Amino acid sequence: MASAVHGTVAASLSNTLDLNASETILAFELQAWSAAQLTAIEQALSRWVASSIDAPAPAGLIDAMRYAVLDGGKRLRPLLAMAACEAVNGQPQAALRAGCAIELIHAYSLVHDDMPCMDNDVLRRGKPTVHVQFGEAQALLAGDALQAMAFELLTPDDGSIDAATQARLCRLLARAAGCRGMAGGQAIDLASVGLPLDSAQLHEMHRLKTGAVLQASVMMGAACGSAPPAALQALSDYGAAIGLAFQVVDDILDVTADAATLGKTAGKDAAHDKPTFVSLLGLTSSIDYARQLLGQALSSLQASGLQNTQALEALADRLVNRQH
Amino acid sequence: MASAVHGTVAASLSNTLDLNASETILAFELQAWSAAQLTAIEQALSRWVASSIDAPAPAGLIDAMRYAVLDGGKRLRPLLAMAACEAVNGQPQAALRAGCAIELIHAYSLVHDDMPCMDNDVLRRGKPTVHVQFGEAQALLAGDALQAMAFELLTPDDGSIDAATQARLCRLLARAAGCRGMAGGQAIDLASVGLPLDSAQLHEMHRLKTGAVLQASVMMGAACGSAPPAALQALSDYGAAIGLAFQVVDDILDVTADAATLGKTAGKDAAHDKPTFVSLLGLTSSIDYARQLLGQALSSLQASGLQNTQALEALADRLVNRQH
Repeated sequence: MASAVHGTVAASLSNTLDLNASETILAFELQAWSAAQLTAIEQALSRWVASSIDAPAPAGLIDAMRYAVLDGGKRLRPLLAMAACEAVNGQPQAALRAGCAIELIHAYSLVHDDMPCMDNDVLRRGKPTVHVQFGEAQALLAGDALQAMAFELLTPDDGSIDAATQARLCRLLARAAGCRGMAGGQAIDLASVGLPLDSAQLHEMHRLKTGAVLQASVMMGAACGSAPPAALQALSDYGAAIGLAFQVVDDILDVTADAATLGKTAGKDAAHDKPTFVSLLGLTSSIDYARQLLGQALSSLQASGLQNTQALEALADRLVNRQH
Repeated sequence: MASAVHGTVAASLSNTLDLNASETILAFELQAWSAAQLTAIEQALSRWVASSIDAPAPAGLIDAMRYAVLDGGKRLRPLLAMAACEAVNGQPQAALRAGCAIELIHAYSLVHDDMPCMDNDVLRRGKPTVHVQFGEAQALLAGDALQAMAFELLTPDDGSIDAATQARLCRLLARAAGCRGMAGGQAIDLASVGLPLDSAQLHEMHRLKTGAVLQASVMMGAACGSAPPAALQALSDYGAAIGLAFQVVDDILDVTADAATLGKTAGKDAAHDKPTFVSLLGLTSSIDYARQLLGQALSSLQASGLQNTQALEALADRLVNRQH
């Protein structure tokens, strides 16, 4: 059933969201830009999560951490950090660390979220989830260790990032990940299964659960350079809009895509009776809403007064027009 | 059975460890010093883990976090941070934050460690464990959120701690908590149940599992001020010695104390066939070893050239002579 509607809705989604006349050019530029960034990101993640060579760490734990982080994932968060850094002419090496740190937080949240006491998912990115592969205890520890490692990445002692930037990055990441960010959103999610949430409550849940870390990706990238307060506010607005758009599209794809495309169990939110934007607004209005949010994100970038926002524009576009 | 040997061994432990002629004076000073510090620590923890007043966070999650952190615990780690700060004439307000951040890491590790997929403990500090009280999912999230909050505490944006100190504190804590610190030690622990560990392996496990965070408590306190490299090395040696001594004494108490005294399930390591210092060395040699380590810790303080080390001395003494 899911795959039967897939083609139609995906097509309607792309058509509806065709906001930008230069989309083809942007898409082309994004592909080239992303390819270069992704090479750096994958190499960095592999090096940093593997550094048991330098200082031995228990092999089983490192294996589970690497399994959780490497060989999968769209790396949207690191790409956002790199793009935001570019927009403020910041230091790419700092943004690479920041982006990888955020990706470790994202990875740990997936590991814990998949565990039997949470969503009890057995499939992630087309592979068995970490607790299926390594056992629950190792999955719990791997998630915990990945969170700590995120803050290790942000605080190198080699002089490559100045102390003020390190402190700012840790501050942004800790707030986005904690009880008034991602973990708080997950707690609302946990408490809301089977309950009717109104629009404000659903927004609040997703602002925390997914939005906070996506917005932090943008702001951490921006923290690797300098920009006037008005530009930072515009980037923050951009981050809030794409953070929300990401979840709206996720909810759309949960009912329209199949597991093979998603690389994870499809239709699980509906099956778990979880409130979603689609269950609240309906499919058509959800697609309209994603389109509006993309418009808001692009307007914010225009209002920022920053010049090098092409990558941020293209990422927002791709985030909304993705099919998995 | 455990309570039958309790009196004898506790007495033998104190007698054997009566290294210091001024012990009575130290104990008295420590009590007064600790009382003042503990008041500040408890107030700070209650304020910081309750700050949902300032920025609303999901009530259930905050409740579980408060339950895990407040109303229990000896606060050994914050006390070590405050004492080390005093030894280097550092800033007590920074050390208070550092100490509370470490306590949040300690609290999260207990929450996760007690979960069914790990030690499956139902009793902690005489109360039901967090997952028993709030459910497994909430316990998982509360632990995750406490780790993030630790780094929030270290990175205030009110100018109360300079950026260089913030970055240094985050670096020390992240390394101590992660895969080459606490989480790594827990992974070795996990892999070693039922296996014969030799002395080197047992030391390595505990150096990471418990020692790293205790040593970091000392070094984070010291990072709130400044001291010559030789003094920092001496403090690091002190931290390593008490970190190990703590675990040796824990293993001794696990077989000699009863649950009422410990506030947790007694004899659980033996029951789970976990290797301990007592199973490796025997009880008498373990007591001798704790005594040696206390001697090493006190020698390191003497070698540090620092003046205000009384609180560190007294804490080492109490840590080894504790009965729970």
